[in-house]
Amino acid sequence: MNRMMKLARRPHGMVKAEDFRLEEGPVPEPGEGEVRIKIAYVSLDPAMRGWVSEGKSYVPPVAIGETMRSYSVGIVDASRNAAFKVGDAVQGVIGVQDYAISNGKGLVKVDPTQAPLERWIGGLGMPGWTAYFGLLEVGQPKAGETVVVSAASGAVGSVVGQIAKIKGCRAVGIAGGPEKCRYVTEELGFDACIDYKAPNLPAQLKAACPSGIDVYFENVGGEILDAVLPQMNVRGRIPVCGLISVYNATELPQGPKNLRFLLTQRLRMQGLIVFDWADRIPEAISTLGAWHKDGKLKIREDVRTTGLASFPAVLNELYTGGNFGKLVLKV
Amino acid sequence: MNRMMKLARRPHGMVKAEDFRLEEGPVPEPGEGEVRIKIAYVSLDPAMRGWVSEGKSYVPPVAIGETMRSYSVGIVDASRNAAFKVGDAVQGVIGVQDYAISNGKGLVKVDPTQAPLERWIGGLGMPGWTAYFGLLEVGQPKAGETVVVSAASGAVGSVVGQIAKIKGCRAVGIAGGPEKCRYVTEELGFDACIDYKAPNLPAQLKAACPSGIDVYFENVGGEILDAVLPQMNVRGRIPVCGLISVYNATELPQGPKNLRFLLTQRLRMQGLIVFDWADRIPEAISTLGAWHKDGKLKIREDVRTTGLASFPAVLNELYTGGNFGKLVLKV
Repeated sequence: MNRMMKLARRPHGMVKAEDFRLEEGPVPEPGEGEVRIKIAYVSLDPAMRGWVSEGKSYVPPVAIGETMRSYSVGIVDASRNAAFKVGDAVQGVIGVQDYAISNGKGLVKVDPTQAPLERWIGGLGMPGWTAYFGLLEVGQPKAGETVVVSAASGAVGSVVGQIAKIKGCRAVGIAGGPEKCRYVTEELGFDACIDYKAPNLPAQLKAACPSGIDVYFENVGGEILDAVLPQMNVRGRIPVCGLISVYNATELPQGPKNLRFLLTQRLRMQGLIVFDWADRIPEAISTLGAWHKDGKLKIREDVRTTGLASFPAVLNELYTGGNFGKLVLKV
Repeated sequence: MNRMMKLARRPHGMVKAEDFRLEEGPVPEPGEGEVRIKIAYVSLDPAMRGWVSEGKSYVPPVAIGETMRSYSVGIVDASRNAAFKVGDAVQGVIGVQDYAISNGKGLVKVDPTQAPLERWIGGLGMPGWTAYFGLLEVGQPKAGETVVVSAASGAVGSVVGQIAKIKGCRAVGIAGGPEKCRYVTEELGFDACIDYKAPNLPAQLKAACPSGIDVYFENVGGEILDAVLPQMNVRGRIPVCGLISVYNATELPQGPKNLRFLLTQRLRMQGLIVFDWADRIPEAISTLGAWHKDGKLKIREDVRTTGLASFPAVLNELYTGGNFGKLVLKV
């Protein structure tokens, strides 16, 4: 039997259990050129909230009645594609379900001896690649510069700050609560971490960034961006990877008040989607993998074992900061 | 006698007559290595509102009691600097006054036989250079792309759109009122011009930009930016040259609501200040001059003859859209 998490209707605000429907069906059979994957872990990513909304975006929205899109990782258990054999561990955009059929396009083989399966949809997977290209290609940090990243204990942010350290930068995180902040500095080796739930974010930022901010890696938006903008150095860069603070807004939220610093400081603010570097993903995998092996890149997953049916509730934790590390759902 | 427009206090909101004070003094004498310039025209530029405000910016604010900073153009009438002789026409940041002393640094010789004096502080001066570097270096328009520019009948915007046409782009202006819009299309040769005072800016934009927007040259900010963002094409560029809609705000205005399109469309939004290309200004002067001579670059000044004392009132017209073409004050 295959259980598939289907989109039942378009959510309004935070997703609700009734926005999805867990359907059952027969285990699908691969056709010629296809493989079947038994999914082990499903990734929960902030972008998912955009994928279930209508409107112009970088990918078409998940249709009503369609299985929810997700990065997932699993094991090939039937193959009619010469490139994959039974037992191969693979990850890709293969959905929130028990079994997926794929023609192999976009499917990436992963090495479960190098890192546990779930890590290949986390720090060594799409979130890691996003951190890698977003920081290095858009942020262009130079040794000695100060890099600030929001959602610093999360899947993308944690990798951003560690790459910044590898590149000789000062890495400053922004995270929610003392426990996450302690993890970011003590475990991940950031130079400082600011608790956005504590008072006076601008003063905290100023203390943590005495030479100003050269790169701000944006995962959040809203008030954090407004606090960062006036402290950006001339010709600073702001890779915009996510705006998690606005994804569940039911009315368009107001934007940053301090946009004039873009002008006076000649900042470059640039949106990014990891697909834009699709042809360079092997480079990201091998570089991140090597850093991970050398102990320079620490990765933490928050594995939920509450089952496929809990998908909507687990997804919401991303937006309330309820997760600690890369959020994945064990299937 | 020299009359100098001094800053009397920091303005709050729109400038008031009492924020400035016209002082009289003796005509200054140049020291060794200096020249004296009899100023003919003073440029009114939107950036001036920032120059009289406190706070972090790209130049220190004009101090209380200091002569107001401005680009001005005039004739050398005394010289103790071998690089300049009496009768040379020059422009530079030489202030709102009858006579200026300069050590020659930043002073640019201009050719009054090629264009009238006032044009050298307009389309062939700083606003023209800003359009040139801002569009070509930050906007990077490619032939066939659509370039939208706000404040399209103004000093910078009018040059931006004409350079876009020279580079083979579709040029769409945004201006206030039918008369300015007619000028932008009929005189300057833009493909279309949208009246932001008419209803439904997004629908007007859509009609004028059937292939979307590749470059939006931002002079205004506020609602216009929000209307443009959802219509930007993937990998579009937004050079931020000015945010005239917010310069007189007494409280920080809300920013763009549609910032998420920066992410989904992978837009690059980048602030610019013409000083960043200081070493390439001769290139801008010669290129703009050649286009102007060939009739490809039309420039219009709005010359006010109400005298130095009217400076504060004339400056305000920039922010209410009361000018039509590059605003200059005859001294």
